[in-house]
Amino acid sequence: MKRIFKDCRVVTMDSPVNDIDGYQVKEHCNILVEDGVITAVGENINDGDCEVTSLGGRLVTPGLIDSHTHLIHAGDRAAEFEMRLNGVPYEEISRRGGGILSTVKATRAASVEQLTELAVPRAQALMRDGVTTIEIKSGYGLTLKDELKMLQAARNLGEQLEVNITTTLLGAHAIPPEFQGHSDDYINLVCEEMIPAAAEDDLADAVDVFCESIAFTPAQCGRVFEAAQAHGLKIKGHTEQLTNQGGSALAARMGATSVDHVEYIDMVGVETLARHGTVATLLPGAFYFLRETQKPPVNLLRKNGVPIALATDFNPGTSPFASLTMMMNMGSTLFGMTPKENLYGVTRHAAQALGLHNKGQIAAGFDADFAVWDLNEPAQLSYQIGLPSLHARYLKGERSSDL
Amino acid sequence: MKRIFKDCRVVTMDSPVNDIDGYQVKEHCNILVEDGVITAVGENINDGDCEVTSLGGRLVTPGLIDSHTHLIHAGDRAAEFEMRLNGVPYEEISRRGGGILSTVKATRAASVEQLTELAVPRAQALMRDGVTTIEIKSGYGLTLKDELKMLQAARNLGEQLEVNITTTLLGAHAIPPEFQGHSDDYINLVCEEMIPAAAEDDLADAVDVFCESIAFTPAQCGRVFEAAQAHGLKIKGHTEQLTNQGGSALAARMGATSVDHVEYIDMVGVETLARHGTVATLLPGAFYFLRETQKPPVNLLRKNGVPIALATDFNPGTSPFASLTMMMNMGSTLFGMTPKENLYGVTRHAAQALGLHNKGQIAAGFDADFAVWDLNEPAQLSYQIGLPSLHARYLKGERSSDL
Ligand SMILES: [Zn+2]
Ligand SMILES: [Zn+2]
Repeated sequence: MKRIFKDCRVVTMDSPVNDIDGYQVKEHCNILVEDGVITAVGENINDGDCEVTSLGGRLVTPGLIDSHTHLIHAGDRAAEFEMRLNGVPYEEISRRGGGILSTVKATRAASVEQLTELAVPRAQALMRDGVTTIEIKSGYGLTLKDELKMLQAARNLGEQLEVNITTTLLGAHAIPPEFQGHSDDYINLVCEEMIPAAAEDDLADAVDVFCESIAFTPAQCGRVFEAAQAHGLKIKGHTEQLTNQGGSALAARMGATSVDHVEYIDMVGVETLARHGTVATLLPGAFYFLRETQKPPVNLLRKNGVPIALATDFNPGTSPFASLTMMMNMGSTLFGMTPKENLYGVTRHAAQALGLHNKGQIAAGFDADFAVWDLNEPAQLSYQIGLPSLHARYLKGERSSDL
Repeated sequence: MKRIFKDCRVVTMDSPVNDIDGYQVKEHCNILVEDGVITAVGENINDGDCEVTSLGGRLVTPGLIDSHTHLIHAGDRAAEFEMRLNGVPYEEISRRGGGILSTVKATRAASVEQLTELAVPRAQALMRDGVTTIEIKSGYGLTLKDELKMLQAARNLGEQLEVNITTTLLGAHAIPPEFQGHSDDYINLVCEEMIPAAAEDDLADAVDVFCESIAFTPAQCGRVFEAAQAHGLKIKGHTEQLTNQGGSALAARMGATSVDHVEYIDMVGVETLARHGTVATLLPGAFYFLRETQKPPVNLLRKNGVPIALATDFNPGTSPFASLTMMMNMGSTLFGMTPKENLYGVTRHAAQALGLHNKGQIAAGFDADFAVWDLNEPAQLSYQIGLPSLHARYLKGERSSDL
């Protein structure tokens, strides 16, 4: 099926971030799509025999990509948040069952159907904000059965809604209560059971780890990465969020598509990312929520040509924020990123962070996933929060009825 | 007409913030409404002869009140934001026509119909977030004709949408270009022409000023307040945002319903607010956007029993954020306010900030303006951002079709 989209003001993102061209609005463009894939973009493109859709002179960007979320989970941490603000000491909150383990408990108790259903409004909120692809991690099951259940719930969400879902096994998210003091045994379980099972059933596209003093060591993370790669899965890491452990450089050397958070990454880490073409994914929602003061080194990443992605990190404990354009505003307001860098961060660079080579640009050979906006210029996406400005979303050339 | 709302989990806000009772969820409540006004709230309230609406066990709070916005304006400041982030010096941006005067220019050029139309999606965004009452200020016209035009546009918005609008004349927002170096002459215009005309045509419910080193002196603001009161209008102030000028204490002594921003308010100022029952309205959106570091003295306000309101300050230059629940999150995250204080800040205290004695509580004698939520507990309103959680809005007992 051939289809032509006429009268578009296109932001193609089809050249690197240092090149002005990909971010410049191209007026009066047509986009030709065949079987869901873009075949041509330009002013004078036409084709006699195809379905015509006019986008009415609206601004068109690649569909936004949220490359880091924990959208699948049960439970609610608002009560814990309230206790903290009411001055209840941390130990007391912990004793009452707060923290990540409360999410683990609730997620273990939920069925796969319940987990999918709980995630529907979260995904829809992102979609109404222009998102066409969402990465979803496991990591609140921490048993073979419950991690697979989370991944299945994520896959089912992708069947149910008009949005692309990629899934990531994050078995190495936290040491489960059953393995306190025996984290190596838990890593064995991740490597020898979870990864093979997730790969076998095609439940995971990638494997992620939390490399941190309060979670897993670089040596343990390296073992997880090796197991993932032995099963043909992509790798990525939660690294350098709270301290500098060298996890980013390790992940980059092993071929990770992205390293995420990276507030504490050092010069060696940045240079290693640059050498390996690894994306640095910044998560300003968690930075804001946790009142962190150590910012990721945006200037250093920029100067070294490291591609920067931005994601919501949507999760119940540290980033309960279901808006990717809000993260674009935070990219500028909290981290000093430019609106151009923000848009690269949620399109071209986000696709790269997920190893999706056919998404994130409006150019021949790329999937026809678009966001169509009632906006004059792309900078507005980074400026305002809460104003509905999405006109339509297209996935592989088809308009989404979900919006 | 009598109507009963059954099966509500009610947060009444019917006692002062220091009392736990008003914030506690009252289970299995009924709310009896007669001619748009609440006549009784409780477990065993019934009435044989009235229309019955079940709220299905949902959480019900007073409709939220955004007590400080600049919703009426034309123009867009995203390009200026982008220039700043791209490193263009302030003088250059100013030379290219940036800053508040760009909004003044665009607003003067717009018709009253255009101004109303531009504000519709902004108001609807607030409404989808549970807002039933919005205060709107003028202040981008800065001529008699253009200030009245802005107020008329705000009044028309209230006719067009299912939301209560209160209007505030903010002629003393900035010194217009025509009066540079002659600010006293401009204050004469505000006092002798704008205020009488706005009062005469019932276009303004209150009068506001910007008391600041870069705007108007306390003496000038005092003159504006006197003129307002001579015409029967309420008064309020933008005070102590960037420096301590003593504007808050002045406004409180003259009977202002609220003083807004107040990052730089001192002990004398706080004590004066407490003595006069003046509300301190905090605007965390502008604080966040401007990367301010001086927080308003929440603890001092608390200890002195000053009622604290929270508002969006929605405006194109320093707070382009159309979500009052996002301000509740910022109240906690940036200012350390509790979820309870936040909810008081957008209901009972916000009503007080506007001098609306029949709004902001679910209690006998108050207007039946409710927000009905798909949430378990009120703390969630301060926790998550971007997730749609509003089930319905009721104004004077009637369900809004706008949502
Ligand atoms: Zn994460
Ligand atoms: Zn204001």
